[in-house]
Amino acid sequence: MLPPLPDIIIEPIVRLALSEDLGRAGDVTTDAIAAPDQRARFVMRAREAGIIAGLDAAALAARLLDPSLLMRIETNEGALAARGDAVAVFEGFARSILTVERTALNFVGRLSGVATMTRRYVDAVAGTGAQIVCTRKTTPGLRALEKRAVRLGGGGPHRYGLDDTILIKDNHVAAAGGVAEAIARARAAAGHLMAIEVEVDSLEQLEIAIRHAPTAILLDNFSSDDLARATALVNRRIPLEASGGVRLDTVRKIAETGVDYISVGALTHSAPTLDVALDAH
Amino acid sequence: MLPPLPDIIIEPIVRLALSEDLGRAGDVTTDAIAAPDQRARFVMRAREAGIIAGLDAAALAARLLDPSLLMRIETNEGALAARGDAVAVFEGFARSILTVERTALNFVGRLSGVATMTRRYVDAVAGTGAQIVCTRKTTPGLRALEKRAVRLGGGGPHRYGLDDTILIKDNHVAAAGGVAEAIARARAAAGHLMAIEVEVDSLEQLEIAIRHAPTAILLDNFSSDDLARATALVNRRIPLEASGGVRLDTVRKIAETGVDYISVGALTHSAPTLDVALDAH
Amino acid sequence: MLPPLPDIIIEPIVRLALSEDLGRAGDVTTDAIAAPDQRARFVMRAREAGIIAGLDAAALAARLLDPSLLMRIETNEGALAARGDAVAVFEGFARSILTVERTALNFVGRLSGVATMTRRYVDAVAGTGAQIVCTRKTTPGLRALEKRAVRLGGGGPHRYGLDDTILIKDNHVAAAGGVAEAIARARAAAGHLMAIEVEVDSLEQLEIAIRHAPTAILLDNFSSDDLARATALVNRRIPLEASGGVRLDTVRKIAETGVDYISVGALTHSAPTLDVALDAH
Amino acid sequence: MLPPLPDIIIEPIVRLALSEDLGRAGDVTTDAIAAPDQRARFVMRAREAGIIAGLDAAALAARLLDPSLLMRIETNEGALAARGDAVAVFEGFARSILTVERTALNFVGRLSGVATMTRRYVDAVAGTGAQIVCTRKTTPGLRALEKRAVRLGGGGPHRYGLDDTILIKDNHVAAAGGVAEAIARARAAAGHLMAIEVEVDSLEQLEIAIRHAPTAILLDNFSSDDLARATALVNRRIPLEASGGVRLDTVRKIAETGVDYISVGALTHSAPTLDVALDAH
Amino acid sequence: MLPPLPDIIIEPIVRLALSEDLGRAGDVTTDAIAAPDQRARFVMRAREAGIIAGLDAAALAARLLDPSLLMRIETNEGALAARGDAVAVFEGFARSILTVERTALNFVGRLSGVATMTRRYVDAVAGTGAQIVCTRKTTPGLRALEKRAVRLGGGGPHRYGLDDTILIKDNHVAAAGGVAEAIARARAAAGHLMAIEVEVDSLEQLEIAIRHAPTAILLDNFSSDDLARATALVNRRIPLEASGGVRLDTVRKIAETGVDYISVGALTHSAPTLDVALDAH
Amino acid sequence: MLPPLPDIIIEPIVRLALSEDLGRAGDVTTDAIAAPDQRARFVMRAREAGIIAGLDAAALAARLLDPSLLMRIETNEGALAARGDAVAVFEGFARSILTVERTALNFVGRLSGVATMTRRYVDAVAGTGAQIVCTRKTTPGLRALEKRAVRLGGGGPHRYGLDDTILIKDNHVAAAGGVAEAIARARAAAGHLMAIEVEVDSLEQLEIAIRHAPTAILLDNFSSDDLARATALVNRRIPLEASGGVRLDTVRKIAETGVDYISVGALTHSAPTLDVALDAH
Repeated sequence: MLPPLPDIIIEPIVRLALSEDLGRAGDVTTDAIAAPDQRARFVMRAREAGIIAGLDAAALAARLLDPSLLMRIETNEGALAARGDAVAVFEGFARSILTVERTALNFVGRLSGVATMTRRYVDAVAGTGAQIVCTRKTTPGLRALEKRAVRLGGGGPHRYGLDDTILIKDNHVAAAGGVAEAIARARAAAGHLMAIEVEVDSLEQLEIAIRHAPTAILLDNFSSDDLARATALVNRRIPLEASGGVRLDTVRKIAETGVDYISVGALTHSAPTLDVALDAH
Repeated sequence: MLPPLPDIIIEPIVRLALSEDLGRAGDVTTDAIAAPDQRARFVMRAREAGIIAGLDAAALAARLLDPSLLMRIETNEGALAARGDAVAVFEGFARSILTVERTALNFVGRLSGVATMTRRYVDAVAGTGAQIVCTRKTTPGLRALEKRAVRLGGGGPHRYGLDDTILIKDNHVAAAGGVAEAIARARAAAGHLMAIEVEVDSLEQLEIAIRHAPTAILLDNFSSDDLARATALVNRRIPLEASGGVRLDTVRKIAETGVDYISVGALTHSAPTLDVALDAH
Repeated sequence: MLPPLPDIIIEPIVRLALSEDLGRAGDVTTDAIAAPDQRARFVMRAREAGIIAGLDAAALAARLLDPSLLMRIETNEGALAARGDAVAVFEGFARSILTVERTALNFVGRLSGVATMTRRYVDAVAGTGAQIVCTRKTTPGLRALEKRAVRLGGGGPHRYGLDDTILIKDNHVAAAGGVAEAIARARAAAGHLMAIEVEVDSLEQLEIAIRHAPTAILLDNFSSDDLARATALVNRRIPLEASGGVRLDTVRKIAETGVDYISVGALTHSAPTLDVALDAH
Repeated sequence: MLPPLPDIIIEPIVRLALSEDLGRAGDVTTDAIAAPDQRARFVMRAREAGIIAGLDAAALAARLLDPSLLMRIETNEGALAARGDAVAVFEGFARSILTVERTALNFVGRLSGVATMTRRYVDAVAGTGAQIVCTRKTTPGLRALEKRAVRLGGGGPHRYGLDDTILIKDNHVAAAGGVAEAIARARAAAGHLMAIEVEVDSLEQLEIAIRHAPTAILLDNFSSDDLARATALVNRRIPLEASGGVRLDTVRKIAETGVDYISVGALTHSAPTLDVALDAH
Repeated sequence: MLPPLPDIIIEPIVRLALSEDLGRAGDVTTDAIAAPDQRARFVMRAREAGIIAGLDAAALAARLLDPSLLMRIETNEGALAARGDAVAVFEGFARSILTVERTALNFVGRLSGVATMTRRYVDAVAGTGAQIVCTRKTTPGLRALEKRAVRLGGGGPHRYGLDDTILIKDNHVAAAGGVAEAIARARAAAGHLMAIEVEVDSLEQLEIAIRHAPTAILLDNFSSDDLARATALVNRRIPLEASGGVRLDTVRKIAETGVDYISVGALTHSAPTLDVALDAH
Repeated sequence: MLPPLPDIIIEPIVRLALSEDLGRAGDVTTDAIAAPDQRARFVMRAREAGIIAGLDAAALAARLLDPSLLMRIETNEGALAARGDAVAVFEGFARSILTVERTALNFVGRLSGVATMTRRYVDAVAGTGAQIVCTRKTTPGLRALEKRAVRLGGGGPHRYGLDDTILIKDNHVAAAGGVAEAIARARAAAGHLMAIEVEVDSLEQLEIAIRHAPTAILLDNFSSDDLARATALVNRRIPLEASGGVRLDTVRKIAETGVDYISVGALTHSAPTLDVALDAH
């Protein structure tokens, strides 16, 4: 089971989110209207079906605002909530719950949106052997949370940032003067533990890449026919990742070419929110 | 003209974005492949038409990474870029440009996505007198940038956070025991400069609200017919805002009921990215 | 009842205060002299009568230094402490109490000073209908805490910062070329929820302002006679705020002109501390 | 000449001050009204006579908001500005100047207030040989800036925090079980470079303290007669500092008892602001 | 050429270092003694021979303290400075140079110490084909800088932290119930780009590990004889890393067993500083 | 007994250390292999004899990662652990313990290394009356922790930073034009509580220094003979500190010259780590 991210990793973005909502004076509406000792119980519910994510960030937001506020999880992260299902229950001072409501929902809505869209792609390629992965096209500040949401939706991991994997893209190939030279330079810098993936734009480049045996090869914007040719050519010796123009209605066809990984930027840059809301019990 | 946000406001999220991409070791690929003194010129281009936003954040990211890196703006924020148009030009060390590329694109793509979706809603209500506004359903950490992107897309301002406007929602009405009592408590706390908006769910609540003369009234999940009844009832004495279930295919019908403002959560919680990319010139 | 500010809002200034007192080595005197397991009970007492404020910041300082330190409140914020009254009781390790003493007292002394001066102004205008409010002339870093101290002293709210209200001052009028033009530009930017207050320096400007119906009008440095003329002219249609040269011995005369609000910079920029001290029980 | 504090020391409080004023949206009034390319020249003037301080913080605020904004100093820190004198001139974009105005004035007003009150005390003891010093009763977050303002006003240095000097106060004496034991414990911890000052409340305690030869002795709340007896007793062997109930009308009498230092909490906890303002040239 | 780390990566530790040295009042000695307009030229020299590192951090410290301070590099990072060689020249205000001196030297001394010790190990294994690498036993806060210093000394890269490589250690093997199960669990989590290295303590474990084909195998505390058996067994199919008890007088013998990598904790946890000092020119 | 440093002082470096190890994704190995509910008990043991330090930082790291993780201290800070002794016991979730292991060990190893080397120097001068002290040649970010480790090893305190003591070094003497002038300028700035130590390089300078009676005199790079002449000359009137070229094999000879303090840079800049490790119980 995928554990929650340690609080220390997500604390900066959670503090930023709380602070941009509370501003200097806090929740003036709630403070004016709710009595200080009024206690309440609110249920966070899914208003549409989806895969739940972001509860770790929501829980940290609640704890940072009011350590006495209880948040009990009803639907685990990574599980499917049906429309109307309770996701979590908040119990404590009404003021605290109403104040943290929007911050908590913004995290859960967005990250569940990512997990839910991922699950759709994962379902679309079921049985093909291809794994759905995401890219670095993530929301500024949410890299770790969104990567985890993709995992919760059934997607696989990819590199986290510029420093943990060498990924040679077209501009790098151009800077080096060719695929072979780029891989050579990368290998000299990589050490024994850093993967080297190289992006190729044509079957010709693919053939060169194969000869230099990178950890993985990224086939960018290949047609389905070319993808099939590529998988035949490589014949499972090197993992192949397809990217570019992947949509929900095209992803199965891509998967059926036999590629091992399909990276989908839309999972993190264009997933609509999952509709979640907080209701008085 | 809407000025850019002061750097000091957006610096926390821009630093977070850079730092989550650079990690501890920076861009190992680029450092391995590009020569330290290699200079380059790259053009950020729109790969689909849209309203440009986020250039202030991209520029700050570039400056924080390498103060010697030049970023020249080719399409102003708020302007429409056609497919293929240059948005900005980067000149400087190739290493710096390749390293900041993804962070810069992530800001511009997401915020242009918000501006572009806003423009679609604005265009859809053209001529009706209704103004499109956004909500607090923003991406954690991006509140200020997304609110500004909505403005760049032609939308209007709304409250920035919990502390600058009193917005009495259904849970507050419940906590106070009624619309009248909630407004009374709010007024006692508000002072002469803080607006009081009250959300109502029915025409009955609307009639009560009108009697207590808030700054504005939010009609939540009203049918078009009820919206029309509401505007007739209020007769321009109090600004009316419609919310709930607003979609691009329903927004004009809502606008034609005569409401003054239509708030659309999707502008910030579900706008797909605008496809922008960096190409070697 | 005015709730305390959420810790997350005041944490930056409380950490800064603790850190500037503790430096790199902490309280070398106390560490040298008090035994590590010595427990103590100290009482924070008012050495002069005044309205208490700042207990939230003091409590957070204590908690950040030593979570096991108990601070029990004896005089609520906003209440009047007579000379000698206990304000709060600290129980725990002697070292922790002696170390946090000065930071806690500095917050309580200064903020109670603000609340106490506010109460004097509020008392001075009792029965006139005028409300005392403060300005943005606050201590750097203490905006939220001082604004709240004014409320605890009986004053009313005003804008918190540059971003939550439009306040057109003389320099803005000059930049726009006139009161009317300035209000017009402001209105175009304001939306339905942001108040527009305009400062006028003469009855002539006031007449122009009235015609453009801002949310409120600030009468800056008006003589009492002119204030009276202004209130007659406006006749309650628009809230009027007086500012400039307000002193404790002049404020009632100003209030009796019928203005609705009187803003007093001195509440936050020149309030002497309230004398509070920590005594071994 | 006392140099300005390095920016890196004052940056946290200056950022906090800017950020609490700018909020999430910046200066909405100025942005609505002033044109983006409008340039201006404003003069910061003293509206009453006083010693100027805080220009380093004001300059950093201006630079953090807009590096292109010029701030030229007309009255040096530590110098006396007569009523109406120019303190500094700002030249640059009108928007930047109007936006930073209040933050800059808040620093200069408060710190000049501290420097000015210090100068009054310094002048009051002129010729006596006593030096005015301040305490740790400073504004939270402004310790370094206020200590420097006291120096600019002619006062002397005192300890900066709990970690740089051992100052044995009554509660420490009580915890140790006596003055002698407290000094012994302190000496064991102090090393050769850390001063030990001990507070005494009576001539009896003073005699004990003298026998243990601390670096300095603080005479707390002594009557003038007892202060005179103390100085006679000590006869310049150990520096003596008087504290407690020092006011502008009593300080000279205290100084004339022959004490070396007089510490005045009011310099930092109760100095009214110096009235400074920004005028269009 | 290994580029310097982006400032944004090292800024937190450089700010911390400056701030712990400057405290609240800055350099009181220099401020008291050097005139404000006195300019100076100081040379940082090696007082013993060694490989230079840490100039990027020193330069950032200088820039953060005083942007007008010039630091010209005389010996490049990674180059050997002979005893007495100039490493860098500082020109600017004497106050700034004297104030930043210790912070700059502390970075250069420590990091050059790491680079120099690395070079000794690298030289000791010259010609064997083994590469010296470091571990995560780095100084708190200096991970990125020390890893880079190892590279500058000729060592190779290793994982940067817990998140970029799977390294299965003895405790993980115990938690999983065996090497095979541990590798299986790791593979399920790893994706196509994350390396899996497994630590084995015996030839028996090595044989199991080989069958599961991890990216690399770490031979912990093997005798030289067992290392030789291991390399024979593996026969270059999988990179082998030796660790445990590596000293300068044993490292060559280890290298000659044919292992590919030798990891040395001492490079970062026990390297003595390189003696560098700042002299007036 | 030397109390631990308040968490608020060491929190920045502990957070930095955790964050550089956890990166964006946390401990991928442990998360893949250990079950979420698996509990464990690990013992931190000394693998060689030494003085223990750094437990406060290790405990804070554990608490920041997982507040439910128990760390029980078995060997107090400042005590000698024999080889194999338990230093501390961790009980809680296996995942938390394995994740925090390296950060905790890095603090304890390094700081115990400092304490242990200090103890060796202290033992070497036993009975001579000289005290071992450290310098500002500390690891960036670890000033407070390393100074405390020196105390735990039996060393004495020295200044913490540039702001708490005046230490006139050769460059300051040069800038002032002589020892006498430098001391005079220092005294004018120092106040009654700040020590003035002056560094002299020769007996001639020493004689000048004595005439101006600083708080202490630092004899830099004196031969043993000159040190003996110096102590004879000063005859206990002023504390004397020796520095420069102090090694474990020379320190006793230096101490026997009668100097009061011996400052040793190596304590903090070149102490090898103490070997500590975490073993499953």
